[in-house]
Amino acid sequence: MSERLFRRVALIGIGLIGSSLARVLRRDSPETEIVACARRAETLETVRRLELADMTTDDPAAAVTGADLVVIATPLSAYAEIGERIAPGLQQGAILTDVGSVKQAVIGDLLPHVPPGVHFVPGHPVAGTEHSGPEYGFPELFRDRWCILTPLPETEPEVVAAVSRMWESCGMRVVTMTPDHHDKVLAMTSHLPHLIAYTIVGTATNLEESLKSEVIEFSASGFRDFTRIAASDPVMWRDIFLNNREAVLEIVQRFTEDLTALQRAIRWGEGDTLQELFTRTRAIRRSIIEAKQA
Amino acid sequence: MSERLFRRVALIGIGLIGSSLARVLRRDSPETEIVACARRAETLETVRRLELADMTTDDPAAAVTGADLVVIATPLSAYAEIGERIAPGLQQGAILTDVGSVKQAVIGDLLPHVPPGVHFVPGHPVAGTEHSGPEYGFPELFRDRWCILTPLPETEPEVVAAVSRMWESCGMRVVTMTPDHHDKVLAMTSHLPHLIAYTIVGTATNLEESLKSEVIEFSASGFRDFTRIAASDPVMWRDIFLNNREAVLEIVQRFTEDLTALQRAIRWGEGDTLQELFTRTRAIRRSIIEAKQA
Repeated sequence: MSERLFRRVALIGIGLIGSSLARVLRRDSPETEIVACARRAETLETVRRLELADMTTDDPAAAVTGADLVVIATPLSAYAEIGERIAPGLQQGAILTDVGSVKQAVIGDLLPHVPPGVHFVPGHPVAGTEHSGPEYGFPELFRDRWCILTPLPETEPEVVAAVSRMWESCGMRVVTMTPDHHDKVLAMTSHLPHLIAYTIVGTATNLEESLKSEVIEFSASGFRDFTRIAASDPVMWRDIFLNNREAVLEIVQRFTEDLTALQRAIRWGEGDTLQELFTRTRAIRRSIIEAKQA
Repeated sequence: MSERLFRRVALIGIGLIGSSLARVLRRDSPETEIVACARRAETLETVRRLELADMTTDDPAAAVTGADLVVIATPLSAYAEIGERIAPGLQQGAILTDVGSVKQAVIGDLLPHVPPGVHFVPGHPVAGTEHSGPEYGFPELFRDRWCILTPLPETEPEVVAAVSRMWESCGMRVVTMTPDHHDKVLAMTSHLPHLIAYTIVGTATNLEESLKSEVIEFSASGFRDFTRIAASDPVMWRDIFLNNREAVLEIVQRFTEDLTALQRAIRWGEGDTLQELFTRTRAIRRSIIEAKQA
């Protein structure tokens, strides 16, 4: 970071995302103090060993004391309790943000706890790998990825801009949208693909033993890609599905209808239906490559 | 190839797989004559421009004349007609093999046409990319990938060994199994993942316009991986689904049941069910990495 944006940053939760952010701050803004908070002693020990923070604690209230930026980066199921615990410690003028993959539920969990004079900017850096934990973070994780902020209508533009600058300094492209729209877009681009990948790998594990061992051994490109996605953090993903229930169920329903139509086309030998769809999906790939996300 | 395995190889169909094989033969066995056969003049023109063959023709019967190895590498829907057309031209002692992604249907289409004295070894080099056509081939395509041969019980071991050696010389690991077993394993590892990827990208294209454009723009890692798979050759994949119908429908049915169970768990907030599955699928990924296919 060319300018020191924040004096003290409290990272509540320091897994893949939190530790990657810590690494960027360490590298580009060495004067920024970093406080890392995690529930497990083992995680904090790893953070100290990797020298990712100036202070470590398992107490969220202590972690936020004196911080001008607080970033919640835990699984979503911890948010409500964290909100409750940090509220008394948040200082006037501090900015509270998060990295959660769902935004409406996050606002519902956190907003009631945010004291007057503290600025809450819900955020979602859309980046990740199938690995979890502070040892897997790396500063380039965010590079050229989107960060979606879903600010509340009453939030001052300068506050949103400060959070934007931080993610931009990580190499991200920042956009804002409504929480509802975010949750629908992500249900399609990220949550459904993960649910499908988990399902398909689960289907494979239920095969009779002789077939299963060969499925693992001969896993062709399709299945192999799915297993990588289905190796993502179980708790994080459990929480995402439970917290974006409506949007995910709506898109699963659409997907199931479309799959049933294809299944029927295969059963009845309707080759034209298949070929027409497969030609259309190939074009979508081109759009994505053109959108420079491929 | 350290030894010249075949004197003249006829490639019936020269897309990604056929042209990659031609490139390996060109590089490692320059004395082997290559005859390339394709229906479209444009494809043959590309083959000549890239100097992938010594002779080009659009007539399968002419292509196989004098060949001691014939490799069929077209979409599956062309097999029966090709079998009929090449039958009179196949020379005594020649080996006929193929690269099709389905094996029972291929045997049904080709075997009736194979003359006595010609050796038929159904094969499937499990390799590919989402690109198709001779310009996208490359000799390393096969490296460290599996090649599955499904020889008929009456075929002499030396004949199977000759085909094995050729694929091994391309860097493949060759195994044999029954056609039925092959079709079941591939339905799970390759055909279902492709069907799902096509479906999910199709579901995205049916979204209302405002959502659709953002889905493309913000496509996160999950969806992006699916679009790559769903960019695979439409005709090739239409043919795979139509020709491995029973195995694909059986595995789609299992998948749908599993997805319905997850959908229900999300609807009723059953976090333990989700977390338990997601933990299991993560372990499968480890097995695959250990099986050195990742």
